[in-house]
Amino acid sequence: MKTTALIMAGGRGERFWPKSRKQTPKQFLCLTDPEKTMIQSTVERILPLVAAEDIFIATNRDYKALVREQLPEIPEENILCEPMARNTAPCIGWGATAIRKKYGEAVMLVLPSDHMITQPELFRNILRKAVNIAETTDALVTLGIAPTGPDTGYGYIQYTSGTMEKYADAFRVKRFVEKPDLETAKTYVKSGEYLWNSGMFIWKTSAILRETEELLPENYALLTQMEEAMGTPEEEKRIEELFGKMKAISIDYGVMEQAKDVYVLPSSFGWDDVGSWLAVERMSTADTEGNVIRGDAVTVSSRRCIVQGGDRLIAAVGLEDIIIVDTKDALLVCSKDHAGEIRKVPEILRTGNRTELL
Amino acid sequence: MKTTALIMAGGRGERFWPKSRKQTPKQFLCLTDPEKTMIQSTVERILPLVAAEDIFIATNRDYKALVREQLPEIPEENILCEPMARNTAPCIGWGATAIRKKYGEAVMLVLPSDHMITQPELFRNILRKAVNIAETTDALVTLGIAPTGPDTGYGYIQYTSGTMEKYADAFRVKRFVEKPDLETAKTYVKSGEYLWNSGMFIWKTSAILRETEELLPENYALLTQMEEAMGTPEEEKRIEELFGKMKAISIDYGVMEQAKDVYVLPSSFGWDDVGSWLAVERMSTADTEGNVIRGDAVTVSSRRCIVQGGDRLIAAVGLEDIIIVDTKDALLVCSKDHAGEIRKVPEILRTGNRTELL
Repeated sequence: MKTTALIMAGGRGERFWPKSRKQTPKQFLCLTDPEKTMIQSTVERILPLVAAEDIFIATNRDYKALVREQLPEIPEENILCEPMARNTAPCIGWGATAIRKKYGEAVMLVLPSDHMITQPELFRNILRKAVNIAETTDALVTLGIAPTGPDTGYGYIQYTSGTMEKYADAFRVKRFVEKPDLETAKTYVKSGEYLWNSGMFIWKTSAILRETEELLPENYALLTQMEEAMGTPEEEKRIEELFGKMKAISIDYGVMEQAKDVYVLPSSFGWDDVGSWLAVERMSTADTEGNVIRGDAVTVSSRRCIVQGGDRLIAAVGLEDIIIVDTKDALLVCSKDHAGEIRKVPEILRTGNRTELL
Repeated sequence: MKTTALIMAGGRGERFWPKSRKQTPKQFLCLTDPEKTMIQSTVERILPLVAAEDIFIATNRDYKALVREQLPEIPEENILCEPMARNTAPCIGWGATAIRKKYGEAVMLVLPSDHMITQPELFRNILRKAVNIAETTDALVTLGIAPTGPDTGYGYIQYTSGTMEKYADAFRVKRFVEKPDLETAKTYVKSGEYLWNSGMFIWKTSAILRETEELLPENYALLTQMEEAMGTPEEEKRIEELFGKMKAISIDYGVMEQAKDVYVLPSSFGWDDVGSWLAVERMSTADTEGNVIRGDAVTVSSRRCIVQGGDRLIAAVGLEDIIIVDTKDALLVCSKDHAGEIRKVPEILRTGNRTELL
């Protein structure tokens, strides 16, 4: 059976302002690798398993040119340009429909475009296992990461001790939970029943579309209409119309939470969802004072800072746990423990109609 | 008797890096007034007392063009360009000699070019009093500021209870002390015997030159040779040669400390020596969170920050007591309690031979 992939690349990445902008969000930046953007790394990682022409990219209309530029090996017709954001269930439904239309039945990897994986070989090993399960069953498979601490930046998956009969490391999922508060996260980790939700899924097109039909019937009806419109002269117009009518809901809550055969593969491949500038520190080598510096910088009496330079010299004097991100037209200085508030800056700029800085 | 002024404008202002650069130091910047540079404010403040053609500027050769540009009302021959830095005693000696050469006996105000004074009328009142004392006696008069706290950023003047017979608010000076540590500063303030040293002096040319002749005879001999060279074709060459031989010493230690008739006028005119970026906060109006902002900035959960913007937006998120100074080619982020270490940055840059950023 053919293995295909749907890479989700529609995010705005506002937690990475000011490097990440509306016109060039996080997945199109070199955040974790100075040579490759995050989406380029995502594609490169799976090429040993999936041919380039079988990789689909779901993105926002505005990013089509960026996808073509950064991923010239992906066929243009595989770029699914969402006319508006509708969360992950409609996006994945469209991807599954497009793959069904092109190949009929196929295995489908659903992957975020903006995560980091330090051990790609281990990642592919897990994917091979997941593909095998998906091919031979109707299960919806997700990858879960054993938590190393009560991180409040991740969603969690609660699993049961029951495994698949044939695949002893695929555990039945009990429920998906969104990012918890610290106390709740601590009880999750202590219980030993929770994994971090990686947002990666593996299944057959028939399996996910059948569950979508059952759990989100209105969306499914719109998807079949979209499938009919594909390849016709009205495709773009019809898709805008139909996609806009979709119920905006995440795949976790819309489908996975209530589907019958949902399994999680506990995985370990050096994963990080790169959810904020703090991730840049986790995945970089610090100097002897614990500073992580990219670009031209001088530090004096400064410790544990994250400096992402632009064209200019940055001097950090007497700073601890401060994030400095410099770009041509905007500069961010933020304390690490307020990194979650970075997204308020684009909000304020939007209110002030300063679109040039978004 | 004619009242003249010597404004000292040779400093490098490294504590104000990156706004202050070797090519444009502090006194030539608009730090305290968005419309006027510090040296322009200094001149403007004394114009009701001293005619522009009687104001002399002692500066570094490199800054002659800046002085001419910012102070077109000052005659070119009044700009004394030091070929190298030799501290204040040689600088003031040259100024006194130049004034003697031009006018013979005169009263001379010696003023730094980079201080702030919020009450110029009170300042001129004190100067009038000092001029009166200088005219009618041979005293060396200095202005002292009653300390409001144990500030370690200022030098101190210890005075005695003895006043001049004719001028009851001119107190005899016991000694000058350099910037003390905090404990020492506390004992100074508690004793009630110390004033902050404003670095401003008022005297007759004959009085200061006589003391210089007695206390720094070698320097005085060089000054008389410089006086002879003034107005001759060899002036520039000779001054370079003679000035270079001067003993580099401050006027406080070289002359004032041991001179006979030294008096201080305790003064109050809203003075600040603008010794670091912290001064910008003292003299500005803060927003409701205590942030002092110049330029384009967005603050989120930030308090008591000093932001000096350049051409770009600065976003401060979750910061407390942080100084951010942005320029075209260099950016400073510094915690307030490390402002004293800012000068280490130009030092490091000099070592790395990055002269373009000095």
